[in-house]
Amino acid sequence: MAVRAAVAGASGYAGGEVLRLLLAHPGVEIGALTGNSNAGQRLGALQPHLPALGDRLLQPTDAEVLAGHDVVFLALPHGQSAAVAEQLGEEVLVIDMGADFRLKDAADWTRFYGSEHAGTWPYGLPELPGARGELDGARRIAVPGCYPTAVSLALFPAYQARLAGPEAVITAASGTSGAGKAAKPHLLGSEVMGSMSPYGVGGGHRHTPEMIQNLSAVAGEPVTVSFTPTLAPMPRGILATCSVKAKPGVTAAEVRTAYEKAYADEPFVHLLPEGQWPATGSVYGSNAVQIQIALDETAGRIIAISAIDNLTKGTAGGAVQSMNIALGLDETTGLPVTGVAP
Amino acid sequence: MAVRAAVAGASGYAGGEVLRLLLAHPGVEIGALTGNSNAGQRLGALQPHLPALGDRLLQPTDAEVLAGHDVVFLALPHGQSAAVAEQLGEEVLVIDMGADFRLKDAADWTRFYGSEHAGTWPYGLPELPGARGELDGARRIAVPGCYPTAVSLALFPAYQARLAGPEAVITAASGTSGAGKAAKPHLLGSEVMGSMSPYGVGGGHRHTPEMIQNLSAVAGEPVTVSFTPTLAPMPRGILATCSVKAKPGVTAAEVRTAYEKAYADEPFVHLLPEGQWPATGSVYGSNAVQIQIALDETAGRIIAISAIDNLTKGTAGGAVQSMNIALGLDETTGLPVTGVAP
Amino acid sequence: MAVRAAVAGASGYAGGEVLRLLLAHPGVEIGALTGNSNAGQRLGALQPHLPALGDRLLQPTDAEVLAGHDVVFLALPHGQSAAVAEQLGEEVLVIDMGADFRLKDAADWTRFYGSEHAGTWPYGLPELPGARGELDGARRIAVPGCYPTAVSLALFPAYQARLAGPEAVITAASGTSGAGKAAKPHLLGSEVMGSMSPYGVGGGHRHTPEMIQNLSAVAGEPVTVSFTPTLAPMPRGILATCSVKAKPGVTAAEVRTAYEKAYADEPFVHLLPEGQWPATGSVYGSNAVQIQIALDETAGRIIAISAIDNLTKGTAGGAVQSMNIALGLDETTGLPVTGVAP
Amino acid sequence: MAVRAAVAGASGYAGGEVLRLLLAHPGVEIGALTGNSNAGQRLGALQPHLPALGDRLLQPTDAEVLAGHDVVFLALPHGQSAAVAEQLGEEVLVIDMGADFRLKDAADWTRFYGSEHAGTWPYGLPELPGARGELDGARRIAVPGCYPTAVSLALFPAYQARLAGPEAVITAASGTSGAGKAAKPHLLGSEVMGSMSPYGVGGGHRHTPEMIQNLSAVAGEPVTVSFTPTLAPMPRGILATCSVKAKPGVTAAEVRTAYEKAYADEPFVHLLPEGQWPATGSVYGSNAVQIQIALDETAGRIIAISAIDNLTKGTAGGAVQSMNIALGLDETTGLPVTGVAP
Repeated sequence: MAVRAAVAGASGYAGGEVLRLLLAHPGVEIGALTGNSNAGQRLGALQPHLPALGDRLLQPTDAEVLAGHDVVFLALPHGQSAAVAEQLGEEVLVIDMGADFRLKDAADWTRFYGSEHAGTWPYGLPELPGARGELDGARRIAVPGCYPTAVSLALFPAYQARLAGPEAVITAASGTSGAGKAAKPHLLGSEVMGSMSPYGVGGGHRHTPEMIQNLSAVAGEPVTVSFTPTLAPMPRGILATCSVKAKPGVTAAEVRTAYEKAYADEPFVHLLPEGQWPATGSVYGSNAVQIQIALDETAGRIIAISAIDNLTKGTAGGAVQSMNIALGLDETTGLPVTGVAP
Repeated sequence: MAVRAAVAGASGYAGGEVLRLLLAHPGVEIGALTGNSNAGQRLGALQPHLPALGDRLLQPTDAEVLAGHDVVFLALPHGQSAAVAEQLGEEVLVIDMGADFRLKDAADWTRFYGSEHAGTWPYGLPELPGARGELDGARRIAVPGCYPTAVSLALFPAYQARLAGPEAVITAASGTSGAGKAAKPHLLGSEVMGSMSPYGVGGGHRHTPEMIQNLSAVAGEPVTVSFTPTLAPMPRGILATCSVKAKPGVTAAEVRTAYEKAYADEPFVHLLPEGQWPATGSVYGSNAVQIQIALDETAGRIIAISAIDNLTKGTAGGAVQSMNIALGLDETTGLPVTGVAP
Repeated sequence: MAVRAAVAGASGYAGGEVLRLLLAHPGVEIGALTGNSNAGQRLGALQPHLPALGDRLLQPTDAEVLAGHDVVFLALPHGQSAAVAEQLGEEVLVIDMGADFRLKDAADWTRFYGSEHAGTWPYGLPELPGARGELDGARRIAVPGCYPTAVSLALFPAYQARLAGPEAVITAASGTSGAGKAAKPHLLGSEVMGSMSPYGVGGGHRHTPEMIQNLSAVAGEPVTVSFTPTLAPMPRGILATCSVKAKPGVTAAEVRTAYEKAYADEPFVHLLPEGQWPATGSVYGSNAVQIQIALDETAGRIIAISAIDNLTKGTAGGAVQSMNIALGLDETTGLPVTGVAP
Repeated sequence: MAVRAAVAGASGYAGGEVLRLLLAHPGVEIGALTGNSNAGQRLGALQPHLPALGDRLLQPTDAEVLAGHDVVFLALPHGQSAAVAEQLGEEVLVIDMGADFRLKDAADWTRFYGSEHAGTWPYGLPELPGARGELDGARRIAVPGCYPTAVSLALFPAYQARLAGPEAVITAASGTSGAGKAAKPHLLGSEVMGSMSPYGVGGGHRHTPEMIQNLSAVAGEPVTVSFTPTLAPMPRGILATCSVKAKPGVTAAEVRTAYEKAYADEPFVHLLPEGQWPATGSVYGSNAVQIQIALDETAGRIIAISAIDNLTKGTAGGAVQSMNIALGLDETTGLPVTGVAP
């Protein structure tokens, strides 16, 4: 029997993407769709790429509307999920695509978000060591940030195999959908087409502590992350270029072996053949992750590069993948690994 | 039991797209993949968005390789399909995504393509009046050109309802994938990004006689088509803007009714609610068609606009839709109507 | 001695473009820069591509600030120019880049803009027959709309030579900067990249009566215009595809001769050699206009296509060109014909 | 009296850009234009954005054609410049926009380019300490690579002030024009639009030794560079994100002071106000460089980011700037600092 799913925040990009995936999921029936500023509107006017739901009306985001579902996806601005989740029964699977429950350290939360920490939920990045165990049967899931997804998958095998020094230097390019659907002048097409620019430089981006949390746990020692996000002229995709010092004596073969081992059985992560490099265009609209690594022997560094679709594997695909695990479905159900290219 | 399908020309854009769709088709098993210049190469190096087929090797395009399949998709340069098709048994469903068998008039063929006419096959645009009858059980199918798909669907209801004058004026913008994967300087990213330009202006584009053929058949009188294609800075999509004189006394309500009637039961064609206009971004990667019409009362013209994905509904999606009909499967099997947006 | 110029509305795209051009104009000194919502801000924060003016502060748009300049460029939302212009002396050259003073017919104005007509100023499209005479010495100039610039230049020679029928069918693709810098969801980069869509279909676009006005004046008879604008995924540029019936017996040579004659001495309009087609990328950032024509003998139509940069020749370049004429400077002073390509 | 300049390789992107700039240079007269495969063609067919030179015919690249000019710009594939330069008199200013004469270390050259070292010419990056002295009066100039220009300007002040550790980690995103105009499948618009991908990862990019050369010279100690270039979906621009360890105790104020001091009198380099970040869109078509720095105190690193136009400051603008110095002209003559934005 189909699982009944509601989506709170169905008018935004994360909400639209989770609906795109759920429409193709054979085990899910789509229930209530909510929005706040646009409650009452046809979904077709807001998400014209989802004709199957075009005549659905957005309802207000409240407990009454969200009641009676097996799964509730929250695609809300951070700070709003806790209040909604509290009103939903413990037996309901609540999947938060926002930031509220990702961090374990309350001080980190307050430092980066300025408010009180709401708690920590099982972390929806199944490929991380130990993650599936926590997701299995879970009824609360925190979906990782899009950048931490790309970066953690690019780097954790190097840390797991103890090949990398503790100071990670990361530059990532993101498509504009990562910045959301709220209209801001610097996100206008006129501004972003033909231009690349950084933001949140110098340690201030809110995804930084999440990367540190993930990588330090695997490394077994504190890892520092110097993270620079950049905005790229494309709607979707993250290309994460991650550089760490290679521990003395590490060889290219050892690095490759570590990644092959880490990803041998992962259905969504593709360590590319040598000589081929990730491209965000190849994972467009898919839940796949492309990874490639190089050892720069002159500079003594490992460069690990990943490409994901920020809205799919980076947000809604990761959410559905985690839902599948939590509900005991096949983890890959309803999730494409085929990209839409060119 | 699954139908076994081969794809000849699997390294190009049409070939890659038909594979993307077939991978999601529950009734198809993918057999031989062929290429000519790249026979022997891994598909993963040529179509990195199709990881499920990454280790497949391209074989040469010859009868031996293509034998033993239920369906053979031909994604070959025009002029090459007839020779291949002849070597395949009559019981094999051969679907030509090239131009060779689209035109009924041999003189038209010779005028636009300069060679001898190879023949005419059932035409794979199921939404056209009468088309499904010819496709049902067919073993040879000519997939329409991408522009004729967009234009015919935008205009035929107006002709069917006898609302439109016989001189159609059409401008269409196409994504660059319509020009194929062969490397030419004017198709470089540096050239096309940030630029729009026309080509084949003045009646010379090879899709023109195909539009005339489709529209005249529905109109019951000879229709002329003045067609201007333009190259747009996007990988996929066709936006066709079609303008015809409204017959005297025609009202906006009559126009709308004609389109509502024509598309009431079509699973892939969406006549948008009034006030909403097609966008190629909304049908990205999907087999859906968005249509909207307006009556310009001052100018006395009907403007019908359609948006499709040139590689999906415009090529490979139309091919799979036609295959479904020919094989007696549900017409929509394996074909997304959900676009990948934003 | 340098002419002193003020720009009202310096924070928007039209204002930024006129400043870009004036910075390279040897006869102009840039005076006051005004904005309303952003008065008090550094221009460098709003127009970071203009480092020479980075430390200038925006002042409020009022008569006191604008007083004491020889030229005042108005880059204001329509409806605001009249009030500002009234407060400036008659000896000041006021150049309105908005719509207020373009239309001659008050009823047209009210029909399309819904307010009372403010009047008509000399029309800043010097290439139109008779236009230079009105601009010479003028102290009030209405800069044409971007679409009417592209369309009028593409079509008027055909009407001037009496080669074309009175019903023009026009589709134009515009870069997103034509929609301005105000943040609206449908103009977000995520929405526009990879997508084309029409708007204002069916006769409702406000530039339509301006095209009718220009073409009818040259044709010597009423011309109708069916105009469909589309939004293209690029920041700048207009590609206008204009189709008119050829009068009986018209030959391709006659059409070409008409355009050669019309543009023989025009410094900014380039009728391309046969076989070469306009591309907006070739006129990026320049005041040049590329034009090419074809006679479709089968359909009996003339197709005239123009490419301009909507912000340069389509707005600020046209404004500076008109200023040069009004002030008795060489018409081409400070205006590039070289595009920034690729 | 005007300097007479020839351009060898006028049909490519570097050649086209140097012509764009020379057309606006008041002290230069454009002489012979050469190409090899396209000798005999009109420049207008190859560089349609340069209408002022549209009727010029390309001549073959040989000594006879290039003789009789004061300046010869070489925009040739690497390995071809030496043979041409030898045939030009010592009094002729030869400016090589290729790689042949950039490196001082012959072993580096052979390692990265596989051929014998041709020599070393004065290095055309005037902002580097000591560079102007070598360029003044020079008759042979090697224009830096586009990436080394962006990276060296972003980082040298930190090394000059002894604030940075010797291991630089750099990721740079480049527009596609950096890859040239030769048609290759992976550079097709269909492939690059909507996609980001790295290349030359792991120390193999040929610009790496040039960066090491520049930074080591300023640092007074050997600097290592781990450089990862990425291809971004835009025609022009480089955004270089450069990360180095801050030496113990270094403060944000010290970093800022070092950059303010380095760039106080530089006409083309703009250290942005705090809080504002470089964007390639802001320097589109200009010779300007935008720079911003941050000290990440948690990670202990300095992040220095620069934005340039790869074809202007990164190639042809740097060439013209160096020409101005060599010839004793004002260094800024003919070089825009205004970008074409949006």
